[in-house]
Amino acid sequence: MSADLTPYALRQKIRSGEHTSNTSGLCTGFVQANVVILPKDWAQDFLMFAQSNPKPCPVIAVAPEAGAYHLPEAGKDFDIRSDVPQYRIWNDGVMTDEVTDIKDYWRDDLVTFLIGCSFSFEEALIADGLEIRNIAEGVNVPMYRTNVACKPAGRFSGNTVVSMRPFKPADAIRMIQICSRFPSVHGAPIHFGDPAAIGIADINKTDFGDPVTIKAGEVPVFTACGVTPQEAIAQAKPPFCITHSPGCMVVTDMPNSKLAIM
Amino acid sequence: MSADLTPYALRQKIRSGEHTSNTSGLCTGFVQANVVILPKDWAQDFLMFAQSNPKPCPVIAVAPEAGAYHLPEAGKDFDIRSDVPQYRIWNDGVMTDEVTDIKDYWRDDLVTFLIGCSFSFEEALIADGLEIRNIAEGVNVPMYRTNVACKPAGRFSGNTVVSMRPFKPADAIRMIQICSRFPSVHGAPIHFGDPAAIGIADINKTDFGDPVTIKAGEVPVFTACGVTPQEAIAQAKPPFCITHSPGCMVVTDMPNSKLAIM
Repeated sequence: MSADLTPYALRQKIRSGEHTSNTSGLCTGFVQANVVILPKDWAQDFLMFAQSNPKPCPVIAVAPEAGAYHLPEAGKDFDIRSDVPQYRIWNDGVMTDEVTDIKDYWRDDLVTFLIGCSFSFEEALIADGLEIRNIAEGVNVPMYRTNVACKPAGRFSGNTVVSMRPFKPADAIRMIQICSRFPSVHGAPIHFGDPAAIGIADINKTDFGDPVTIKAGEVPVFTACGVTPQEAIAQAKPPFCITHSPGCMVVTDMPNSKLAIM
Repeated sequence: MSADLTPYALRQKIRSGEHTSNTSGLCTGFVQANVVILPKDWAQDFLMFAQSNPKPCPVIAVAPEAGAYHLPEAGKDFDIRSDVPQYRIWNDGVMTDEVTDIKDYWRDDLVTFLIGCSFSFEEALIADGLEIRNIAEGVNVPMYRTNVACKPAGRFSGNTVVSMRPFKPADAIRMIQICSRFPSVHGAPIHFGDPAAIGIADINKTDFGDPVTIKAGEVPVFTACGVTPQEAIAQAKPPFCITHSPGCMVVTDMPNSKLAIM
């Protein structure tokens, strides 16, 4: 699969069942997004939770109404029911199925959210000459549960999950500048340095993803992570919910640069 | 002396000899600047040095030509020969006089530079709710010589001098965002954390200014400092030079907010 494939062409392959795996490294330069689909009576609470916690839960698009499966902001002819490589079906907080198409699960009361993903700012960091350690080491980004509480909203609450990337201090300063331009993909980091200050007991023991090397002279830099809303949903246990499968993202027609606020 | 005095009114008091001391805390909201005045044949080298090292040496105004003592960018009716509370006269790198008026020293070949000062970004940090430790403790900001070399230009060279302000990491991230908006007053910091990484042996032993308390959970944040060009001039030993006396700045008509690039 070529990195140069257009998002539209990739989505056609996904829709036809030709591509059913992760989207990492595909369609370089275009925004990829996390997916959360909730019944309308839960969607309102979720939107309030996201609005109150924009760093871990940056909403980049919401379907225009309940039951709508076309999201014009995601791209040409986009259909949320078929254009994600793999979906997870959740009942009362328990995953009950993993599928490549959700037409059979679709309901008129479902509201779709697309949530920003760190791929967009990582591309900007690499373009600036910074090394992303987990990419250099060919592993998933290290992620940790913290003791930093989200603002509760309705039935949703929980602590912030962070991803971690190590940098030399001068590079961390540049990373903060670049990520500040991308508030819709988690924005500036929330912490650097001492992991214990945000409740991380052991930096070598991740809660999600893989540990990476922190070299001498580097500090760990912690960014709010899109796993946070997933954790909040798992705690809230809505009767029904659909998400993407990890790594199998919505690939939109939107250039990453469009997410930069300046 | 009221903080509400207009810059023009203060400059009139300075010109008449009524105010001959430091300008700290005066004319809140307006840009204060460091002064360097050099003969034309040295001014070209100095401008190249400043252009090559904009973080420690941000030029905010240059006189329109050699011999010019009015700087329209500095404000209404501004005269560099009389509108600074105290000046230092340097010959071959040695201070030979300290005066409140330089009309007797003025020459047709002198070029005036105004260089940005951290007062402008400190005001923005305080407005955002951050504590500037040296202000809270009522002392001068701690400054240190580092091993970070400036780019040499002509006869000027030397290492970067930094000022230091301690912050909790989350506040340091906010400080980096705010200071990034002010490239003409040193911009984003150049380092945080381990002092030894930039050649500072003992954080409690300053080269200029006073040490301040670093509380538990805080990290020292290091910003390039306007003492850097003074050090470069002291090393280059031009035959003649005029600077302001420490703390006795040019008070301009320019609002600090005008220095924000966004």
